[in-house]
Amino acid sequence: MLNPVKVGILGLGTVGGGTVSILQRNAQEIARRAGREIVITHACAKEIKPSADYRIENIALTQNLEEVVNNPELDIIVELLGGTTIAKEMILKAIHNGKHVVTANKALIAKYGNEIFQLAQEKGVMIGFEAAVAGGIPIIKAIREGLSANKIQWVAGIINGTSNFILTEMRDKGAEFADVLAEAQRLGYAEQDPTFDIEGIDAAHKLTIIAALAFGIPLQFDKVYTEGITQISSEDIGYANELGYRIKVLGIAKRTAKGVELRVHPTFIPHRRLIANVDGVMNAVLVHADAVGHTLYYGAGAGAEPTGSAVVADLVDVTRMLTTDPNNRVPHLAFQPDSLQDIPILPIDAIETAYYLRICSYDRPGMLAKITGILSNNNISIEAIVQKEPKENAAQVSVVILTHRVVERDVNQAIQAIEQLDGITGKVMRIRLETLDK
Amino acid sequence: MLNPVKVGILGLGTVGGGTVSILQRNAQEIARRAGREIVITHACAKEIKPSADYRIENIALTQNLEEVVNNPELDIIVELLGGTTIAKEMILKAIHNGKHVVTANKALIAKYGNEIFQLAQEKGVMIGFEAAVAGGIPIIKAIREGLSANKIQWVAGIINGTSNFILTEMRDKGAEFADVLAEAQRLGYAEQDPTFDIEGIDAAHKLTIIAALAFGIPLQFDKVYTEGITQISSEDIGYANELGYRIKVLGIAKRTAKGVELRVHPTFIPHRRLIANVDGVMNAVLVHADAVGHTLYYGAGAGAEPTGSAVVADLVDVTRMLTTDPNNRVPHLAFQPDSLQDIPILPIDAIETAYYLRICSYDRPGMLAKITGILSNNNISIEAIVQKEPKENAAQVSVVILTHRVVERDVNQAIQAIEQLDGITGKVMRIRLETLDK
Repeated sequence: MLNPVKVGILGLGTVGGGTVSILQRNAQEIARRAGREIVITHACAKEIKPSADYRIENIALTQNLEEVVNNPELDIIVELLGGTTIAKEMILKAIHNGKHVVTANKALIAKYGNEIFQLAQEKGVMIGFEAAVAGGIPIIKAIREGLSANKIQWVAGIINGTSNFILTEMRDKGAEFADVLAEAQRLGYAEQDPTFDIEGIDAAHKLTIIAALAFGIPLQFDKVYTEGITQISSEDIGYANELGYRIKVLGIAKRTAKGVELRVHPTFIPHRRLIANVDGVMNAVLVHADAVGHTLYYGAGAGAEPTGSAVVADLVDVTRMLTTDPNNRVPHLAFQPDSLQDIPILPIDAIETAYYLRICSYDRPGMLAKITGILSNNNISIEAIVQKEPKENAAQVSVVILTHRVVERDVNQAIQAIEQLDGITGKVMRIRLETLDK
Repeated sequence: MLNPVKVGILGLGTVGGGTVSILQRNAQEIARRAGREIVITHACAKEIKPSADYRIENIALTQNLEEVVNNPELDIIVELLGGTTIAKEMILKAIHNGKHVVTANKALIAKYGNEIFQLAQEKGVMIGFEAAVAGGIPIIKAIREGLSANKIQWVAGIINGTSNFILTEMRDKGAEFADVLAEAQRLGYAEQDPTFDIEGIDAAHKLTIIAALAFGIPLQFDKVYTEGITQISSEDIGYANELGYRIKVLGIAKRTAKGVELRVHPTFIPHRRLIANVDGVMNAVLVHADAVGHTLYYGAGAGAEPTGSAVVADLVDVTRMLTTDPNNRVPHLAFQPDSLQDIPILPIDAIETAYYLRICSYDRPGMLAKITGILSNNNISIEAIVQKEPKENAAQVSVVILTHRVVERDVNQAIQAIEQLDGITGKVMRIRLETLDK
C-alpha cells in the first residue's frame, strides 16, 4: 500500500472532533476503500478539550494556522474554522501552496466559491465541500455525479434542521413559535442568536450551492430571496393540517423559461409527499430532473459525526484522485468551469407559485364577495376557500384561501387591495404553496 | 474540447431507447459536465422500431454483437441485452478488448460480478453498473463513495417496484393478491411470468450487489434468502394497519456479530418511518451507518429514462476517468479488491428479528393460554397480542401476536408446536417485523 495521505485540520470543534473520531475509529475500513491510510497529522485549535472519542497523541498541535497550511508535508487541509474572513485567507493560502482542501463552510463557498474554485482550477487542486450542504447526506455527489445525465428542473430541500425542528414541534404540540424556539435553544438545536437559522440565511447558503451544481450557473448568494418562520402561527399550522398540507421551510431552486428562481421560505406542501413527512432536525432534498423524475435524499443535516462523515468522504475522494490529471476530475460546480451559464435570477415578485392566504375581518355581510372580487380582478383563481370563526373572538372571522398558480406580483397587489377593505383586521397572512408534483 | 467518446450499445429495447434518448436530448448539458461529447456511434439490435424519442441516422446498426464489441473505434460498450449467457460473453470480450463497460444487468453482476470485476481489474478497465440497482437512484454511488467514511451496519431497501405496487394496491383497495397481480399485468407493471418480481429474486440480485458494496464482501447471490408476497392476504394488511405498521418487501443486508444477514421478504415496518410511506412502483433504500446514522435514497426503480439516467451517469463517470491511473479509480465493489473479507453469511434460521404471527383456531377456552405458553417455552416474549373474530366465520378466531426480537429458529419451533395444538385451523402466518430504528 502507498504511504498514508497526510491531513492537517484547522479547527477541532464539533465537526472537527467528529472528523478525527471517524478517521481513527474507521481507519481500517477507510483504508480498505481509499487504498491508502488517511491520517490527521497536524491540527490547529485554540484549545483541545480531552475527548473520549479520539486520541491526540499522534497529532501535532499548534495555535498557528499558517504552520498547518504552509507545512510542506501535508497533502490536504481540512478547514473547519467557520466564518468567511480567516477561513477564506487560509484556504486561499493552502491552494497557493498546492494543497487540496476539504471544507464544511457553506457561507464561505456560497459567497466566495467562484473565486476559490477559480484559483483551485489554476493550481490544479481539488476543493471538497460535501459537508457544506445537508450534513451527512451525499447530496452534492448525487446532483453533481449521480444525476449528470439529466437536465435538472428544480430542487426543493429541507436544508435547515433548526427551523424544521421548530415547525415540527409547533405542529405536534400546538405550540407557538417563541415557546418552541426557547425550547430548541435549551436543547442546543438553536443558537442563542438564531437569526441565521430562523430567517433562512443558512438555508440560502446551501441553496446557492445546490443551484449552481444543478443548473451550471455561478454561485450567487446575494440573489437568493429569504423569508423566515417568525411569522408562522399555530393557527396557520392548524389550517395547513385541516387542508391536507404541512408547512416546511423549503429552499427552492427552479429553472423556468424566464430565468432561475432562488428562494427560501415557509411553504405549504401536500402531506402525502414523502418530503412532507421529514420531521424534526432531519434534512431532505427532493430533485426533479427530466430523465430520472423525482429523487429524494434524506438524512441528518448537522451534528459532529454526520457532518464528519461528509468531510471524510471528501478526503477519500481526494485521496483516490490525487494522481489524476486535473482536467479529468469532476468539476467543482458539476459543469466545466468554461461552460457555466449566466442565466438571470428572477426577482421574487416575478416568481410563479400557488398561495395560502389567511384574511381576518369583522364578520360582515358581503365581505367574502369583496375579497373574491379583488382576487378575480387580479387574475387569481381559487383552489379552495374556508371561512372560520376563531375561538377567541367571535365577532371576527378568518377567511382561508388556497389559490392556483399565479405570478407573485398579482398576489401582492390583491393583498394590498384586500388590506384596504373596510372591516379587515391586521395584515393578510401569505404562505407560498408548492405541490411538488412536476 | 477533446474528441467525442464513442459508445457502442448492445440492445435497443426499453432501457436502450431511454439511454439513446437522453444522450441525444441532453447532449449539450452532458458535454458541459463531462468535458467531452458522449456519442452512441454503433448499436446492435434485432430490430429497430422507429422512435419519436431519438434519431438513428448517425448510429451504425448491426445484428452482430461481435461487430460492436470488437470495433477498435469504440471506447465504451453499454450492455443492455439482459440474461446471463450472451451478455456475459460479450462483456468479457469487451473487457479483453480493453473497453470500458456500462451495464444495467443486475442478474449478471450478482451472479458473475466477481469474475467480471477481476478481469476488468487485470485489464485496467471500468465497469459501471449503477443502473443495476434501484434504477435512477444513484444508490451505488451513495454507498460506494458518499458513505465511504462509515462502517455500514445495515441496508434495508424497497428495491422491487412490482411487488411494492401490488402491496400498495392491496392496502389502498382492500384487494387480494391474485386480483392485484392481474391488474398489474394489465398495466404492464408485472411480467406475464411474474416469478422474478413476486418471489423476491429480482430484489435478491440487487441486494447481493448492495451487500458487497456496503460490507466489502464478495458477491454471493446464492446465499440470499428469498420469500415472496404470494401468501400475503388482505387480512394481514388490515392487521398491519390496525397495529400501526405497513407491509413492505424489504431487501435487508445486515452485519451482526455472528455474520451477515442477507434476506428478501415481506416485512412489517412502523408506519411512521419514512420508508413505510414509499408507495406504488417507487423504490427507496435506507442505510444505517455508524457515523452518518440513517440516510434514505428514493426514486424510480425502473423505466426507460430513470434507468437510462443511471446508464448515462456511468458513461459520464467513465468518460471523466478515461485517462486515470487504473489503481486510483473507485474500486468496483467499493473496497480495494485485495481487501474484500469473507464474512460468513448466516442461514435464515439463525437471523434475529421480531415477528408478526397470525394464528387461526376454533374459539375454545384455554387456547390463548396454550399459545402463549408455547411462546414462553421457546423464549419468545410478546410485544402485543390481539384476538379477533373474522367476519366470515364466527366459530373461529384469529390471534394476532407481535413478538420481541428473537432467533428465527425459536419462532419456527414455536410455530410447529402451535400448529399441532388441537383446534388450530391451517398454518400459522408468520411475517418478520423490523423497527428500522437502529
